[in-house]
Amino acid sequence: MESFNVGIITVSDKGSKGQRVDESGPAIEEMIQKIGGIVKRYVIIPDEQEQIKAELIHMSDDLGISLILTTGGTGFSKRDVTPEATMEVVQKHVPGIPEAMRARSLQITPKAMLSRAQAGIRNNSLIINLPGSPKGVRENLEVVIPALRHGIEILLGEASECART
Amino acid sequence: MESFNVGIITVSDKGSKGQRVDESGPAIEEMIQKIGGIVKRYVIIPDEQEQIKAELIHMSDDLGISLILTTGGTGFSKRDVTPEATMEVVQKHVPGIPEAMRARSLQITPKAMLSRAQAGIRNNSLIINLPGSPKGVRENLEVVIPALRHGIEILLGEASECART
Amino acid sequence: MESFNVGIITVSDKGSKGQRVDESGPAIEEMIQKIGGIVKRYVIIPDEQEQIKAELIHMSDDLGISLILTTGGTGFSKRDVTPEATMEVVQKHVPGIPEAMRARSLQITPKAMLSRAQAGIRNNSLIINLPGSPKGVRENLEVVIPALRHGIEILLGEASECART
Repeated sequence: MESFNVGIITVSDKGSKGQRVDESGPAIEEMIQKIGGIVKRYVIIPDEQEQIKAELIHMSDDLGISLILTTGGTGFSKRDVTPEATMEVVQKHVPGIPEAMRARSLQITPKAMLSRAQAGIRNNSLIINLPGSPKGVRENLEVVIPALRHGIEILLGEASECART
Repeated sequence: MESFNVGIITVSDKGSKGQRVDESGPAIEEMIQKIGGIVKRYVIIPDEQEQIKAELIHMSDDLGISLILTTGGTGFSKRDVTPEATMEVVQKHVPGIPEAMRARSLQITPKAMLSRAQAGIRNNSLIINLPGSPKGVRENLEVVIPALRHGIEILLGEASECART
Repeated sequence: MESFNVGIITVSDKGSKGQRVDESGPAIEEMIQKIGGIVKRYVIIPDEQEQIKAELIHMSDDLGISLILTTGGTGFSKRDVTPEATMEVVQKHVPGIPEAMRARSLQITPKAMLSRAQAGIRNNSLIINLPGSPKGVRENLEVVIPALRHGIEILLGEASECART
């Protein structure tokens, strides 16, 4: 696997209405390109559970994207429903990814424990929730990147079981 | 937010029959008052899943309590069903809170990994399971307190998304 | 409790066809014997969700085994379904055990966050997913062992609530 396809979903009511410039989506793209990720689709959508689900399904089922990264909607606000949308579309949970992200962020701020981010697998796609702020995105993505290519290779059947050891 | 309402549920078969003095409920009250928490209701109920659910719903829906803290019923005993009752009434999971509590407790004792505590959100209420012993309550609540007010402010819509960064 | 019964399930397509020698099952047996575990049943089965579920239920319901350890099928491969089978048969989740295992493994390799291992309780049985490799088994089981006897004693009603403090 030399490169892999990436989808970015910025979940933000304000961003989707053009009332806020999305800095988190571009922050993801910049980091993910460095490890061979090619952004095939990037959308900004409101904090609507059905819309998030539909976009996740579209990127996975129609576009066959290997890695879908969401940013935003993982907090305590009434409108924050990104983890719920994610859990509804994945077939397998990957609890270790959000655990690792929160454990690292917790060394920076106790507020990290309020992140409700989830991760999971739908067919050939790994879906990971990232926080909403560009700073949070960078901190969290940095934690995941060292394991990311290997995870995607296993998922796509390009690495053997043995390699996991 | 200057102060916030708190509900305390001590889940204990013995405590509910008056066969054991509850030291954990008072330990919670003492700590939570220091950060502006006002205990609106405090009950001692047996380890009955339906009764725990009913009390959680009453505190959240009828009394509009912002923070509901349970103590007890998170272990391996047959009668321990507090996490199950909690997961049935919440609409959103908050995995980072029990993760942070267990990670800290694990530095004290390996038995910390046996805590099955959960946390979640139901409407305007944050629900957190704490262990049964007063010592466990103090250790765990201490971990959560630095993030608690901020979480409740976001939940009640009194803090902006940006503030989360 | 002087000793306790253990069941080992090696989940491996190749192992079940005799195309690979199972080193992980024996690694579990060696470690678990040292803390008083007596292996009552040890099977090698393919990565089939229904077959894993059936074996878990058989060991728990028919054989009354206290501790069931699985190895394999916790990764990102299409065939990896051990955590899904486990979550379908348990009545209670024990998130702290896989959290502790991953946290420790994460200090060795970032790939640890890709382990999808789960743990839970079915009646009188504690079920824990371990990774597939013998190295992973040893690393992870070492983390759990210090809390294991106590957990099983509580589960079987042989230790009091108070002892948990």
